[in-house]
Amino acid sequence: MGWAEGFIAVDWGTTNRRAYMVDGSGACSAEFEDGKGILSVGPSGFPAAVAEIRARLGDRPLLMAGMVGSNRGWVEAPYVPCPAGIDELAARLVDAGDGAWIVPGVSLLDGARADIMRGEEVQVLGAVASGDIAPDGLVCHPGTHNKWIELKGGRIAAFRTVMTGEMFSLLNDHSILSDLIGADVAPGAAFSAGVQRGLSGAVLTAELFTVRAGVLLGRDRKEDAAPFASGLLIGADLSAGLEGSSGDVVVMGRPELTELYAAALADAGRGAVEVDGERAFLSGIAAIVERIA
Amino acid sequence: MGWAEGFIAVDWGTTNRRAYMVDGSGACSAEFEDGKGILSVGPSGFPAAVAEIRARLGDRPLLMAGMVGSNRGWVEAPYVPCPAGIDELAARLVDAGDGAWIVPGVSLLDGARADIMRGEEVQVLGAVASGDIAPDGLVCHPGTHNKWIELKGGRIAAFRTVMTGEMFSLLNDHSILSDLIGADVAPGAAFSAGVQRGLSGAVLTAELFTVRAGVLLGRDRKEDAAPFASGLLIGADLSAGLEGSSGDVVVMGRPELTELYAAALADAGRGAVEVDGERAFLSGIAAIVERIA
Repeated sequence: MGWAEGFIAVDWGTTNRRAYMVDGSGACSAEFEDGKGILSVGPSGFPAAVAEIRARLGDRPLLMAGMVGSNRGWVEAPYVPCPAGIDELAARLVDAGDGAWIVPGVSLLDGARADIMRGEEVQVLGAVASGDIAPDGLVCHPGTHNKWIELKGGRIAAFRTVMTGEMFSLLNDHSILSDLIGADVAPGAAFSAGVQRGLSGAVLTAELFTVRAGVLLGRDRKEDAAPFASGLLIGADLSAGLEGSSGDVVVMGRPELTELYAAALADAGRGAVEVDGERAFLSGIAAIVERIA
Repeated sequence: MGWAEGFIAVDWGTTNRRAYMVDGSGACSAEFEDGKGILSVGPSGFPAAVAEIRARLGDRPLLMAGMVGSNRGWVEAPYVPCPAGIDELAARLVDAGDGAWIVPGVSLLDGARADIMRGEEVQVLGAVASGDIAPDGLVCHPGTHNKWIELKGGRIAAFRTVMTGEMFSLLNDHSILSDLIGADVAPGAAFSAGVQRGLSGAVLTAELFTVRAGVLLGRDRKEDAAPFASGLLIGADLSAGLEGSSGDVVVMGRPELTELYAAALADAGRGAVEVDGERAFLSGIAAIVERIA
């Protein structure tokens, strides 16, 4: 059963999975997404979960990326240290058995910095391989854990994770701000004011309490709390991620998030090029398959 | 029923309450603490909850402070704007009926800053009234929401809240770090390393992810994650709270927290004077009673 006649690509995350049937011509002929992330599948459930994917999409080889290769996934795929490109990922695939392979994540250990990623590397390197983005530059990949990725010569030279999405969820779901920041967030004046505060180097744990106090004292509108808090976190995120860089930033991921980050980058005086992460993922998987087929 | 023959002081917070019987000589003759904070008492439960306090301590006038005066408490006691001293608090007590009075909180509105406190003001101004701390200087009151309080002429001139304790709880209870930072935190090398990172102006949401990555990559010991993360949050807290100040800092509150903050202040090159918050609370209530009896 060779790769050249078609394969299945799976982006398997913590809380959901997306699977694509890529036919022999390289086109995606079928796909689905569901909530069967690694946490709901559980350690022993992967063979059945993969069989289900094949029943829906076809009996083809599988190439998977994301948290499925973590220590809570199916089979652990050790991190590849940076600098890492498609070649390094393809050389370190992990055989999960049954015609299914897992792409490793990427790690960084550099002085005071330690960092890891799983899944974003396929998208970013895929966009390079397809020519959608330049082989050198800065990529921002927002999500639960935003990744700032420095590309050099088509490889990931360094990166930095900022847990902006997770922090917003923690504040929204469990904090003293939860009754204030449940609203949807869109770019606008309150968002931009938050971005500026975040960019200024203000201490997040101090600024966040001000959001509550400002509403309680009648100074700020309740509906501005969510966009301000979001802008604050994203502004702080930018101050970490943009450090030492210049020029436009590629923003890759889900459109509702890339839009917010592009707006924040504009507030920081930086251009943004939004790239769809799903298409980039398929390009990355195809580039790896080229090297192993 | 006059105050001079004795009264009951209640420090009534979100999740617990402490009640003290102060006799005619000013001594505390009986006290108790339980988990009947305002959230478990509920809006209509306060008359019964107060009757229970009197049944246990005596049928005396009550003076209460803390979240019992918030919009989720018994009767809302509007904030007194700073600068605020014992005189301003005593002049703005709110009559909850049935011989029970509530001390107002203190608010700040100053340009970009908005802030509120409820409960800490009684302790800090009480320590000034009893002569335990100087009428001018900086006070740090750690807790769920740490308060940095600037005293001038025995009054609260300004203050700043940092939600350090709440953030640590959010990370511990609900975040991707929860399996790493459940341990108890004590001062030491890992704590001090965190304090230095926090003081350096590092972005918290970026540094926190490094805690996880460092352990997963085998660079850092799992048992250092909790003290490092705590130090990181407290270091950031200090960088906000110490801004523009010099000299020793009074650290008031529960001993397990004042010890951590005193250690962090030493790492920041600042002296700390630890003061017990319970004793200061009783001094503050006594000073208010003096003005209304």
